[in-house]
Amino acid sequence: MTRLKLGMVGGGQGAFIGGVHRIASRIDGRFDLVAGALSSDPARAAASAAELGIAPERSYASYADMAKAEAAREDGIDAVAIVTPNHMHAGPAVAFLQAGINVICDKPLAATPEQAKQIADAVDASGAHFILTHNYTGYPLMRQAREMMARGELGTIRVVQAEYAQDWLTTSTETTGNKQAEWRTDPARSGGGGAIGDIGTHAFNLLSFVTGLQAEALMADLQSFGAGRKVDDNAHIMLRFAGGARGMVWASQVAPGNENGLRLRIYGDKGGIEWSQENPNVMTFAPLGEPKRILTRGGAGLGGGGGNWTRIPPGHPEGYLEGFATLYNDAADLIEGKGKGELLPGIAAGMEGMWFIGACIESSRGDGKWVAR
Amino acid sequence: MTRLKLGMVGGGQGAFIGGVHRIASRIDGRFDLVAGALSSDPARAAASAAELGIAPERSYASYADMAKAEAAREDGIDAVAIVTPNHMHAGPAVAFLQAGINVICDKPLAATPEQAKQIADAVDASGAHFILTHNYTGYPLMRQAREMMARGELGTIRVVQAEYAQDWLTTSTETTGNKQAEWRTDPARSGGGGAIGDIGTHAFNLLSFVTGLQAEALMADLQSFGAGRKVDDNAHIMLRFAGGARGMVWASQVAPGNENGLRLRIYGDKGGIEWSQENPNVMTFAPLGEPKRILTRGGAGLGGGGGNWTRIPPGHPEGYLEGFATLYNDAADLIEGKGKGELLPGIAAGMEGMWFIGACIESSRGDGKWVAR
Amino acid sequence: MTRLKLGMVGGGQGAFIGGVHRIASRIDGRFDLVAGALSSDPARAAASAAELGIAPERSYASYADMAKAEAAREDGIDAVAIVTPNHMHAGPAVAFLQAGINVICDKPLAATPEQAKQIADAVDASGAHFILTHNYTGYPLMRQAREMMARGELGTIRVVQAEYAQDWLTTSTETTGNKQAEWRTDPARSGGGGAIGDIGTHAFNLLSFVTGLQAEALMADLQSFGAGRKVDDNAHIMLRFAGGARGMVWASQVAPGNENGLRLRIYGDKGGIEWSQENPNVMTFAPLGEPKRILTRGGAGLGGGGGNWTRIPPGHPEGYLEGFATLYNDAADLIEGKGKGELLPGIAAGMEGMWFIGACIESSRGDGKWVAR
Amino acid sequence: MTRLKLGMVGGGQGAFIGGVHRIASRIDGRFDLVAGALSSDPARAAASAAELGIAPERSYASYADMAKAEAAREDGIDAVAIVTPNHMHAGPAVAFLQAGINVICDKPLAATPEQAKQIADAVDASGAHFILTHNYTGYPLMRQAREMMARGELGTIRVVQAEYAQDWLTTSTETTGNKQAEWRTDPARSGGGGAIGDIGTHAFNLLSFVTGLQAEALMADLQSFGAGRKVDDNAHIMLRFAGGARGMVWASQVAPGNENGLRLRIYGDKGGIEWSQENPNVMTFAPLGEPKRILTRGGAGLGGGGGNWTRIPPGHPEGYLEGFATLYNDAADLIEGKGKGELLPGIAAGMEGMWFIGACIESSRGDGKWVAR
Repeated sequence: MTRLKLGMVGGGQGAFIGGVHRIASRIDGRFDLVAGALSSDPARAAASAAELGIAPERSYASYADMAKAEAAREDGIDAVAIVTPNHMHAGPAVAFLQAGINVICDKPLAATPEQAKQIADAVDASGAHFILTHNYTGYPLMRQAREMMARGELGTIRVVQAEYAQDWLTTSTETTGNKQAEWRTDPARSGGGGAIGDIGTHAFNLLSFVTGLQAEALMADLQSFGAGRKVDDNAHIMLRFAGGARGMVWASQVAPGNENGLRLRIYGDKGGIEWSQENPNVMTFAPLGEPKRILTRGGAGLGGGGGNWTRIPPGHPEGYLEGFATLYNDAADLIEGKGKGELLPGIAAGMEGMWFIGACIESSRGDGKWVAR
Repeated sequence: MTRLKLGMVGGGQGAFIGGVHRIASRIDGRFDLVAGALSSDPARAAASAAELGIAPERSYASYADMAKAEAAREDGIDAVAIVTPNHMHAGPAVAFLQAGINVICDKPLAATPEQAKQIADAVDASGAHFILTHNYTGYPLMRQAREMMARGELGTIRVVQAEYAQDWLTTSTETTGNKQAEWRTDPARSGGGGAIGDIGTHAFNLLSFVTGLQAEALMADLQSFGAGRKVDDNAHIMLRFAGGARGMVWASQVAPGNENGLRLRIYGDKGGIEWSQENPNVMTFAPLGEPKRILTRGGAGLGGGGGNWTRIPPGHPEGYLEGFATLYNDAADLIEGKGKGELLPGIAAGMEGMWFIGACIESSRGDGKWVAR
Repeated sequence: MTRLKLGMVGGGQGAFIGGVHRIASRIDGRFDLVAGALSSDPARAAASAAELGIAPERSYASYADMAKAEAAREDGIDAVAIVTPNHMHAGPAVAFLQAGINVICDKPLAATPEQAKQIADAVDASGAHFILTHNYTGYPLMRQAREMMARGELGTIRVVQAEYAQDWLTTSTETTGNKQAEWRTDPARSGGGGAIGDIGTHAFNLLSFVTGLQAEALMADLQSFGAGRKVDDNAHIMLRFAGGARGMVWASQVAPGNENGLRLRIYGDKGGIEWSQENPNVMTFAPLGEPKRILTRGGAGLGGGGGNWTRIPPGHPEGYLEGFATLYNDAADLIEGKGKGELLPGIAAGMEGMWFIGACIESSRGDGKWVAR
Repeated sequence: MTRLKLGMVGGGQGAFIGGVHRIASRIDGRFDLVAGALSSDPARAAASAAELGIAPERSYASYADMAKAEAAREDGIDAVAIVTPNHMHAGPAVAFLQAGINVICDKPLAATPEQAKQIADAVDASGAHFILTHNYTGYPLMRQAREMMARGELGTIRVVQAEYAQDWLTTSTETTGNKQAEWRTDPARSGGGGAIGDIGTHAFNLLSFVTGLQAEALMADLQSFGAGRKVDDNAHIMLRFAGGARGMVWASQVAPGNENGLRLRIYGDKGGIEWSQENPNVMTFAPLGEPKRILTRGGAGLGGGGGNWTRIPPGHPEGYLEGFATLYNDAADLIEGKGKGELLPGIAAGMEGMWFIGACIESSRGDGKWVAR
C-alpha cells in the first residue's frame, strides 16, 4: 500500500477546519500531507509547514505557484484540500482543477454565484475529481438512513424536519477577536449568508442526501439578532419538495445550550427516523404501528449498509472526525479507481447549496415570499 | 372541607376527554360529579350517568334542561365541564354562563368565529367564571418556565421552537370507525382546522403562556396527507412576535413514532430552556456560557414556583392527569374565592386560539402569505 | 356504581404517604374516604378528619375503637388503609383483619419478625383481604415486563440488576426536624433497616414480581455514611436465585443527584429489558441479535398486557400516582369479587420483604457472609 | 516536526485491537508505523506488513529478532505497540524493555502473576517507558472527572458504581469460529479470567483513575452462563476502599442489548457524577442541593481540564479512537521529553489489574469470601 500525496491550501496556524481535514486524512492512513500554501502570510505559511512536517520546498507562497509546481513534479500531489474562507474557494479550486489535480473543497462551494459557476465550469472542463466536504454525510447512520429510504422502508416521504442549532454567536463574538466569528459574519467573506451558509447548508445537504428529495421552492425568514451583525444568525425556512413532501429547516447560532445541534427527522407513510449529530452512533426508526427501534452504528439487526463505513465495534463511539475521514477514504478510493464515489458530495451538491443560500436571501428580502427553482 | 358540585356536558360512553376531566376533577378531591347531560342519545346518557353514580334525576336530556334545572336547585352545581366536540361548545357554554354557572370548557374554544364571539359575549355578560382547559399549562415545569422568563432569567426572548407531533392519523384512521378520528377530521365538527386546532392550538397556547409573547403575524403551510382527508394533518407555521422575537410551530398527526410529542424550546439572549411533554418532570435550562442544568419538578435548586403545583416528591413522576388536575384545583380556588386564577387559561386564551386557527387557514389558502393581527 | 367506603389509620397532617394513598384511592373513583384514626394526637386527628371531609363521628381516637365501631356499622368501611410508620402496622392490621375488614397496608410489612408473624397469622385466620402497597408493581410497563417474562420472551433469566438511589439523606437530614427522616432513621420505628427497608424492599419486591425468581441466598455490605446515623443509608447486595440466576441490588439514600432512581434491568439468554421509575412510560426491550426496541405504555406493538392498567393514550404520561391507583383499583375489584387480585402484593410479598431485610442485616453483621433461606 | 517511529507486535490480518492502535497512533500525526512482527505465521506477517506499508526488511519473523534488529538500527523504532493476546504480552514486553525500547502494551498486563512480575522487573531495570493502554482514561471527561475529584468538588467519596456490560457472548460465540471470542474464553490464553480480565479490569482501572481510591478488599461472585464456557462471562463484585468508601462492579458479556456499556457513577458527600462510554462527550455533575449539570467535552463552564485533550469544538463528538489517540499523544510527549506522563497508565496500573483479576478468582472460588490486599 502506498499513500496518496495530499496538498493543502489554507489551514495555517490559528485556522480551524484545516486541522480537521488533516486529522481526517490521516485516520485511515490513505494520505500523506506533503505540500501546502497554508497561509497568505509567508512567515505563517512557512512556520505552519514546518510544524506539519512539510518540506520547505513544497511550502508555497501562493496556491497558483503550488498548482503549477505540483503539477510539474513527478511526485506531485494526488489531491489538494482547500480549507480557506468561502470567498477564497474559487481561485484555488479552478487553478488545481485546471492543473488536473483532484480537489477536496470545504463547504459552502463559494461566496457568490459567479464564483460557483467558475468552479462548476472548471469541474466540467477537468478530468480531475471535485469533492465538497459536506462531512455529515460520512456518518454511518446517515448512509444507513439513505439506504433505508431508497429501499422504501419509510414509504413515501411526507415531512422533513431538519435543524442545526448553535449558541456561539449569541453575543457579538465577532467583536472579541475571534477569527472564526469574524469572517463568518463578514458578508464579503462569507458570501452574504451567515447561519444559512455556515450551518444551514449542512442541514439542507444532509436532508437531501438522506431522502433524495428535490427542493422545488422555499421561503425564509432570516434574522440578525446579534447587535450590529450584518448576516443572519437565525433562519426559519420552509421547503416544498417535488412529489409533495414538505420540510422545515431551522438554523441558529444564537440558541443558548446548543453546541452543534444538527438534527434530522424524516417521516414517511410507513415509518419515521430521528437522528442527532451530537450522539451520532444512535438513530431511532419507528415502523408505523410497531415499537420504535434504536439502531446503533454497526449494531444488531442492521440490514446491510449501516455496518460499513465504520472502524470499530458498536458501542465504541465513532465521532465527527471518523465521519469526516470516511469522505477522505472514499476520495482515496475514487482517486485510486476503486470506486465511483456515488456517496461523495460533489459539484452538484455545491450548486444545490448555492441555490439554497441565494433563495433564502431572496425570500427573506421579499418578506418571506416563496422562491421557486 | 366541602367538595364543589360538578356537572358535565358530553363525555358519555365511548368518549375520551370526558373521562380525563373526571379523573382530573377527582385527583385533588375538590369536586364531586353530581349532574350531567352526557350524551345526546338519551339511552346512552342514562347508562353513562348510572355508571358514574349520578342520580337519575340529575341526568338530563339536554344541556339546556340541565342549565335551567341546576340553576334552580338549592344544591345546584358549582361548575360544569363541557367536553363535547368543538362545534358543540358554544351552546352549552352560553347556556350555563347565562344561568350564572361557572364553565370549564375543553379547547379549542369553538368551531367558528361566530360561536367564539357568542361565548365571549356571554362571558362578558356573566358573573360566572370561564376556564378553557389548555391543560399543558398545568405542568409544574411550564409554570416554572413562565416564572423564569418573567424574572428575566433567559433575557430577551429571540427564538421559540414549538411542536406537537403525533402519528395516529398517518393512515386514514377516520375511515375505520374511530370516533375520535371521525369528528376531528370532519370540518363541520372540528371547525375547519385539523391538526392546527386539535394540537397546534395547544402548542401555540403553551408558548404564549410560557413566554408572554404576543404574536403579531403568522404564515402557514398546511397539508392533508391522509387520503381523502378534508382538514390539515400536518402544519408548518412561522410566527412573528411583538418586540422582534420569531417562532416556528410544527403540528403533525402523520409523523410515525410520535405519540404526543409536544415540545417547547425557548431561547433568549441570556439562556435557553427545552422541555418535552412526554417526560414532563424534567426541563433543561442553559444559562449562556454555563453548563446546561437539568431542572426537575420540585427538585433541587428551583427558586420558587417549580416546587408548587405538585403533590409528591421529585423523582416520583407526575403526569398528564396531574397537570390537568391542577387546572381543576385552581378552578376550585377561583370558585371558592381563594385565588384570582391568574394562571388559568380563559376566554382571552380561547380567542387567541381562534385567531391562530383562522390565520393559519387564511395564510395557507393565500399560498403562505403573512397574516397580521 | 357505588363507591367502596374507605377508612384510614395514620396519615394526619404532616404525614406523607397517607396523602398519596388518598389520591390513589380517588383517581379511579372506586373509593370514598369516610372514616379515620388519622393521628394518635386527638386534636390533630380531628383537624385532619375535618380537612378531609370525614364526619366527626367517624374520626376515631384509636384504631382499636375504629375497627370495632366500623365493623358494627351497617354502612361500615369496606377497607382500611394503614399508613403509619413501620412499627405501627401490626396493631391496626391485626385489629381490622380480626374485625373482618379488608386491609390495605403500606410497606414494609412490619418492623420486626414478630410483628410480621402476627399479621400473617391474622391474615390466615381472617376472611378479609390483605394488600401490601408495593406500588411500583402498578406501573403498566412492569406488569408488561412480567408478562413478557412469563411468555419466555427473554428466555431463561440469568442476571438481574436492580437499584433504588436517592440523595435526601446525604447530610444528616434527620437532625433538622424532618419527620420523614426521623422515623426512617430510628431503628425502633423503622425496624432496624434504613435504606434496605425503605427502598431496598421496593427494589427486591419489584424484581421478584417481574421475574418470578425466588431468592435462595443473599449477601450484603451495609453502610451508614451519615454522621451518627444508626441505620444503613447505603446497601450493596448480591443475590442468588433458584435456577442459577444472579442479581445485584444497590439501595442508597446518599447518592447526590438521585431523586427516586428505582431502576430495573433484567437479562435472559434471549433478550434484556431496562426500565427506570423516573420516566416510567418507557421501557427498552432488546431481543438478542435485533435492534433494541422502545416500548411505551400502551404504545404500538405491545402484545397484550401493556395496554391495560392505563387510563390515557400513549405519549400522555401517567406517573407514580396512577401506578399507585392501579393497586387501589385492583383492590376494589378484589373486594367486589370481580377479580382474584393475582397481581396484588399481599402477605407473601410482605414476608419476602421481611426475609430480605433480616438477611441483609444478618449478612452485614457477619461481614458479608452469604445468608441462605 | 518529525514523527516518532513505531513498531508493532501482533495485530496482523484478522486481529482487532492492532488496527485500533494503528489508527490511534495516526490521529495526532506523532507516529509512523515502520516495523512489525505482526503475526507468528510468517506468510500472514509479510502480507500484513505489505498492506500497512512496512518495508519488507522491517517485517520480522519474531519479536525477539525485531527487538534486536531495531535496537541496532540507527533509525530504529522509538516505541513498540504490543497487541497480542494476554498470554503473549510478557515475552515481547521484556524483550523490548531490555533492548531499551519504549513499550505501549495492551491490557490486561499479562495472563499470570509470574508473567506480570517479569514485566514489572523489566520495567524496573529498563530506562524505557512502559505504557498500558487502559484507553478509557483518555476520554476528556474522565480526566475532567479526575480533576474535579482531586479539587474536592464531590467532597469525600462514599460510593462508586462501575459497570461494563456487553452481549456478544450471550450465546457460545467462541464455538462459531470467532477468533476474538476463542482466545478470550480460553483460560490458557486469557489468563483465567474472562469478563473480569477483558472488561472488568477496564472498569476497575477507570474508577481507580478517576477517584484515586485504593481498593483494600473485594469479594466476587463469578458466573459462566455460556454453555461449556471455562471462564467467567458475568461478574458481580463488591469493593472496599481505604478510607471507607465502597463500590460495586458489574462486568458482563451476556447482557442482551449492551454493546460496550462502560458506565461510571461516583458519589461523594458534596456531589455525584455519572458518565457512560457510549456517549462519552457528556457527563452529569450533581452538586448536592443544586440542579444536575450536563458537562460536555470542552463545553461551557468547565473549569480547566475538560477543555484539554480534545481536538474539535464541543458538540462535535469525539469517540473511542480519539480517547485512545490521546494515550498515544501523551506517550509521544513522554518519549520526546515534553511531559511526565502523569496521566498515563503504566506498570502500577497493570499490577493493580492483576490483583483485581486474581482476587476475583480467589474470592469466587472461596464462595464469595472477602479477599484483602
